[in-house]
Amino acid sequence: MSTAISPLAPASFPEMPPVAGVRLATAAAGIRYPGRTDVLLALFDAGTTVSGVFTRSKCPSAAVDWCRDRIKGGVASALVVNSGNANAFTGKSGAAATKLTAEIAANAARCKTGDVFLASTGVIGEPLDATKFGGVMDRLVADAASGGWHEAAKAIMTTDTFPKGAAAIVRMGPSAVTISGIAKGAGMIAPDMATMLSFVFTDAPIAPVVLKNLLRHGVEDTFNAVTIDGDTSTSDTLLAFATGAAEARGVAKITRLSDPRLAAFREGFNAVLADLAEQVARDGEGARKLVEIVVEGAVSKKSARRIALSIANSPLVKTAIGGEDANWGRVVMAVGKAGEPANRDRLAIWFGGIRVAHKGARDPAYDEAAVSAAMKKPEITLKVALGLGKGRDRVLTCDLTKEYVAINGDYRS
Amino acid sequence: MSTAISPLAPASFPEMPPVAGVRLATAAAGIRYPGRTDVLLALFDAGTTVSGVFTRSKCPSAAVDWCRDRIKGGVASALVVNSGNANAFTGKSGAAATKLTAEIAANAARCKTGDVFLASTGVIGEPLDATKFGGVMDRLVADAASGGWHEAAKAIMTTDTFPKGAAAIVRMGPSAVTISGIAKGAGMIAPDMATMLSFVFTDAPIAPVVLKNLLRHGVEDTFNAVTIDGDTSTSDTLLAFATGAAEARGVAKITRLSDPRLAAFREGFNAVLADLAEQVARDGEGARKLVEIVVEGAVSKKSARRIALSIANSPLVKTAIGGEDANWGRVVMAVGKAGEPANRDRLAIWFGGIRVAHKGARDPAYDEAAVSAAMKKPEITLKVALGLGKGRDRVLTCDLTKEYVAINGDYRS
Repeated sequence: MSTAISPLAPASFPEMPPVAGVRLATAAAGIRYPGRTDVLLALFDAGTTVSGVFTRSKCPSAAVDWCRDRIKGGVASALVVNSGNANAFTGKSGAAATKLTAEIAANAARCKTGDVFLASTGVIGEPLDATKFGGVMDRLVADAASGGWHEAAKAIMTTDTFPKGAAAIVRMGPSAVTISGIAKGAGMIAPDMATMLSFVFTDAPIAPVVLKNLLRHGVEDTFNAVTIDGDTSTSDTLLAFATGAAEARGVAKITRLSDPRLAAFREGFNAVLADLAEQVARDGEGARKLVEIVVEGAVSKKSARRIALSIANSPLVKTAIGGEDANWGRVVMAVGKAGEPANRDRLAIWFGGIRVAHKGARDPAYDEAAVSAAMKKPEITLKVALGLGKGRDRVLTCDLTKEYVAINGDYRS
Repeated sequence: MSTAISPLAPASFPEMPPVAGVRLATAAAGIRYPGRTDVLLALFDAGTTVSGVFTRSKCPSAAVDWCRDRIKGGVASALVVNSGNANAFTGKSGAAATKLTAEIAANAARCKTGDVFLASTGVIGEPLDATKFGGVMDRLVADAASGGWHEAAKAIMTTDTFPKGAAAIVRMGPSAVTISGIAKGAGMIAPDMATMLSFVFTDAPIAPVVLKNLLRHGVEDTFNAVTIDGDTSTSDTLLAFATGAAEARGVAKITRLSDPRLAAFREGFNAVLADLAEQVARDGEGARKLVEIVVEGAVSKKSARRIALSIANSPLVKTAIGGEDANWGRVVMAVGKAGEPANRDRLAIWFGGIRVAHKGARDPAYDEAAVSAAMKKPEITLKVALGLGKGRDRVLTCDLTKEYVAINGDYRS
């Protein structure tokens, strides 16, 4: 595992406000990693609502199964997240481990087992010894306190090279409400490797049906628009918790999508998701460049997304960017293979704002030296204009480097 | 560019019989590569039929456009293939270059321009100077002779580390007929890089409609079941030519799919395609392992193919194999992300014939030392049993190594 911090990391962990109704604690349960915390407990005040989105994998982890079965209730009392073991592909013992973890947390926190939410990330296929949580849970409950986002973000890391957090404060009637979130990412999955987990917390009073809508739309252009290697984790989980603690400060509950206060809240909520998703891309395994792929002029936004992902997931495009090569021939290839409407003779391609291809051929005005300079920057925008319609979309990715191969080609230790 | 021959290459170029009615010649036209041949001319006797399959890219090369427009005629007099320039994304000048190339060949060979077939591989987006063919074409026509497969296979190479050829001899009534083919591959595309081209020649007398059927079915489990990096070339081309010269030896023409002689011919033809396709996988850019992915127990063959390709194209699976790590957790991930029916609790996974996972969990009998030994071999079979139905399929791929990144991350020279 690489220990150097990604060159694309933010300068520091952000200042993040506490969220009324949320208390956090972390501990070292010895799941796998020595000398570091590996369990996060979040406790929620009564009345906290929850919604979630999960991996589309047909082989989800036991924790994903557990959350899916309980998310419809819309009520949460606690969240337990562990790193070091994904509890995925662990069969019946995996399901038993989720049940035991929830029971241990429910006993310690004096809540219902069914109101405990779970997420696990780390090795796949190894049984998770949930009894280890028993040794730390009472202290976690006793220690749980307001704030502590930095420690929380660190406890859920696997191959991440930096902890990820983002926050927003939004005016809501007579008071301000807080939205604070943490995430972990890196590659998409694997033994000793990564998965994408994110947890967002707010003290705004939001009914489950509204929270579900916020989340479903919010991920579309944030977490669903980030790709590291096109691989999909068994464990990807994004949970949003709304404690409603702001009601005590006179903020009436949001129960309908037509509530006019929702627009500003949605903006703040989406900004937190977008910030966290970008940090995941910045910490792509072996990443040396943050790459924004913009596709415009497609027949629809959906078509633009497919073409953008085809470019973003192309190993040949990603290695070229890693080599600081404005290799637009490979972009043509990736557009062509996406299977979406595209007309070669209308295609134009820009690297770092410089047009390199135009109307089905190399741009005659294209200055190789200027493009080379643009390719040396740590952040690169690659734009493709299809000239067919008004569909536009954007995804974030990173380059494919020898470090990615080294990180993922090492033996399991 | 890497110059070392792939460790997975065959020991030598095969003995390949000449095909009556086909004459070959090669030349150095100076398209891009110094000190090597870069043009192949094949001349066909009158009555030669042709069929082809081409890239599914929405941005095909000018040569692909040229062939598609003329393949319906089903008649061929000549084939011109160049390496060094793909004549792709070259706009109107690309179309003009194909026309000029065909005219130069038709003048020299005294045939119709429309009966000349073309293929180009190499840099994308650079104009192809077709006048260079003018300087060598008369000599190519004069030199054209029976046999010469090895030289032909060498002239069409780009980043290939070895020339690729395969042949079969099949009994057909009173005589034997010959099937000889050549191919080039490597990665799927790109400036200085690769594309998949293959040309198969036979002296069997086969009507265009029958040849088309042979080709369409033949590619399904051969060239369409090979993936290096999931990227699709703008230029992929497979052409089959049947000279019919065996008619002079008493072999009646095959005009119907119900012809009983077709079964044996199809077997030989498919064996040549399979051999060439495997050689393409063996020469995957940076490849150190040939990987066969077998999926069985899927709901259909189509579903098995999709799951096999999801595994074969997963960077995490490919890097693990490069690292000689039997990382079945990543295989679970790749099965899960394929979007096809799969039940985690029925899944079983084998590496090199050793079962490592069974019924949704690690196989308790799994011997790590035996698996490690299997992973060190240059050829590895990865089998997944889904336990859902009778659908079975197989694809070939290779590992993803630092050499792949180095080859594809270098600056264009």
